[in-house]
Amino acid sequence: MAIVKPLNYEQADPRARAVFDDIKATRGVRDVNNFWKVLAHDPATLERIWSDLKRVMAPGALDPLTKEMIYVAVSIANGCEYCTASHTGAARAKGMSKAMLAELVAVVGMACQTNALAQAYRPEIDPQFHAK
Amino acid sequence: MAIVKPLNYEQADPRARAVFDDIKATRGVRDVNNFWKVLAHDPATLERIWSDLKRVMAPGALDPLTKEMIYVAVSIANGCEYCTASHTGAARAKGMSKAMLAELVAVVGMACQTNALAQAYRPEIDPQFHAK
Amino acid sequence: MAIVKPLNYEQADPRARAVFDDIKATRGVRDVNNFWKVLAHDPATLERIWSDLKRVMAPGALDPLTKEMIYVAVSIANGCEYCTASHTGAARAKGMSKAMLAELVAVVGMACQTNALAQAYRPEIDPQFHAK
Amino acid sequence: MAIVKPLNYEQADPRARAVFDDIKATRGVRDVNNFWKVLAHDPATLERIWSDLKRVMAPGALDPLTKEMIYVAVSIANGCEYCTASHTGAARAKGMSKAMLAELVAVVGMACQTNALAQAYRPEIDPQFHAK
Amino acid sequence: MAIVKPLNYEQADPRARAVFDDIKATRGVRDVNNFWKVLAHDPATLERIWSDLKRVMAPGALDPLTKEMIYVAVSIANGCEYCTASHTGAARAKGMSKAMLAELVAVVGMACQTNALAQAYRPEIDPQFHAK
Amino acid sequence: MAIVKPLNYEQADPRARAVFDDIKATRGVRDVNNFWKVLAHDPATLERIWSDLKRVMAPGALDPLTKEMIYVAVSIANGCEYCTASHTGAARAKGMSKAMLAELVAVVGMACQTNALAQAYRPEIDPQFHAK
Repeated sequence: MAIVKPLNYEQADPRARAVFDDIKATRGVRDVNNFWKVLAHDPATLERIWSDLKRVMAPGALDPLTKEMIYVAVSIANGCEYCTASHTGAARAKGMSKAMLAELVAVVGMACQTNALAQAYRPEIDPQFHAK
Repeated sequence: MAIVKPLNYEQADPRARAVFDDIKATRGVRDVNNFWKVLAHDPATLERIWSDLKRVMAPGALDPLTKEMIYVAVSIANGCEYCTASHTGAARAKGMSKAMLAELVAVVGMACQTNALAQAYRPEIDPQFHAK
Repeated sequence: MAIVKPLNYEQADPRARAVFDDIKATRGVRDVNNFWKVLAHDPATLERIWSDLKRVMAPGALDPLTKEMIYVAVSIANGCEYCTASHTGAARAKGMSKAMLAELVAVVGMACQTNALAQAYRPEIDPQFHAK
Repeated sequence: MAIVKPLNYEQADPRARAVFDDIKATRGVRDVNNFWKVLAHDPATLERIWSDLKRVMAPGALDPLTKEMIYVAVSIANGCEYCTASHTGAARAKGMSKAMLAELVAVVGMACQTNALAQAYRPEIDPQFHAK
Repeated sequence: MAIVKPLNYEQADPRARAVFDDIKATRGVRDVNNFWKVLAHDPATLERIWSDLKRVMAPGALDPLTKEMIYVAVSIANGCEYCTASHTGAARAKGMSKAMLAELVAVVGMACQTNALAQAYRPEIDPQFHAK
Repeated sequence: MAIVKPLNYEQADPRARAVFDDIKATRGVRDVNNFWKVLAHDPATLERIWSDLKRVMAPGALDPLTKEMIYVAVSIANGCEYCTASHTGAARAKGMSKAMLAELVAVVGMACQTNALAQAYRPEIDPQFHAK
């Protein structure tokens, strides 16, 4: 249940519309996701998040699919249903197969398990892992 | 501060030693990390976690480096210092450059930000992201 | 999906009814929220939580609206949909404008991002931040 | 334990130095915190985070102290020790008294408690909290 | 909203069916829960999780009901609605009364509150709690 | 690193001293833990938390050891090092053996793993788990 109603293109103000236009052009889609439509209530945040996201997710030392899969993994760990669904969709569009998704989820589950074991027993960090 | 003392090879029981031996042989290392030494108090869990980890992290639809980076990302999101340090070390050993680590961390930070925005505004999941 | 059914006034036991009466009188509302109706299964906890909440949220060094906005921020960070919705409603009733909500959410998102960066890189705490 | 060593001014590259200079000028401080020194390994992220932070934390519908207190509250909820210490320091510098800190912490604790109760019992969101 | 469709017995592959059969025989139930039906997309993970769960939840130094209640408590703390509902059901089946559930939830809420206070104030760990 | 210095008996104000006295008498200990000494900066919260804790942790439908173990499990899941250490100490004092601790930790780890799998795949809650 959204605490604000999503704004569509007609309801959004000009600054928000400009971001919507850029999202649609960049991604080659007809409409933007609900995430952007709820952010449209706050055009300054909408502009900042979209601008940051384009930069952070651009190809670099990591390819876009790897970045998208990391995004999915973090969204699962944080229990964010919307982001898990939308970034899984984005990763599928960038080439993530069903087998890749299954392995990604298995790694997240395993990490959550061993994170808990380490948070319980609190082993000292081994010297070889210290920053040099 | 560990709530149990790490057990070294001499202190560990035979079942735990057998796991230590397998970790050392599999990874080509002289000694196991403190994580395994604290788990050695519970040989059944030590065996299970090591066996599961080998299977989950084996090459498959995802390569071992990608899996290791997902592990690091989840450990950061969960705030687990030990696992962040140890799996960052493992990812570096598998070829993660400093630039790749920097991008990984930036993606995690960005995901945590948009996860929070989505948890705040709770947009409805768009129909195209529904399972088919 | 509640794991217990909410109890209305007629179904609640006398101790729970007394709390319901006090909530209604204190807040000037006709009925209590579903949160209190599910807690009514455990009158001791219902009494304790309501009593604590009145004390913690009372005007003091911080005004009630600031406290309510902190409550919303924590509920978002914890991913609690019910509390995010209900405390956003309470904050709106105490004077939080749409612009204030938008800035609150932006701060929460930014904090979650830099929290993740700090949990990743684990900088040492600067001496000036140590307790004196 | 940082997974990278903090970079001081002399070690940082020109892009990072420019950010350091701006932080020092904006805040009127002699040196930047360790958070910025570990981010200096990734000048693009350093620039983006500093630029975003200035915008998000600027006075607006909420005053800077309220924003800083929300930042502290989220950092506590996320268990981020570094951010809790550094933003508590920042909030103190902006006028948060010891009594205000004590009330802030009490609200965070109370919110975490009722968040847990709501996540356990999962009451349905009351109609009056739905977005209009 | 599941990101994959649950697979029923007829749709599942032979490895998944074998796990379904074992779950049904072990628990004396006619059908498996939706958790297992979504995991059936990844038979290797389905086999591993079921096998691990049987071992971890078996009677040992702790009885099965205590283990199940710990499972519920962790699921609440992690905000996992599905696991909270399903393990509450399992605990009820193993003898958890309504009064026991109420006390369990109260303890979880209290722990989340004092965890937050400790994460805020970060007291040093007392010497008597150090591992010996 | 505490953001406030712990207060010992001589430094604490009369209201805090009265709580310290009651903790010592109730638990039969010579001094209170650091948790109470940092809370002593806020006597109202100190009184409230101690009073609530006594009530929540008192024997009822669940025995004190089971409650203490649930407390430990939640503290691990929340990544709270102080509470994990102090409540593990308390549980040991109430009769938790090393074998019980090992099983408790294994259950927490398993729950964190399957919580993650459920948060990833989001299976629908089965009808038999709905509140009746």
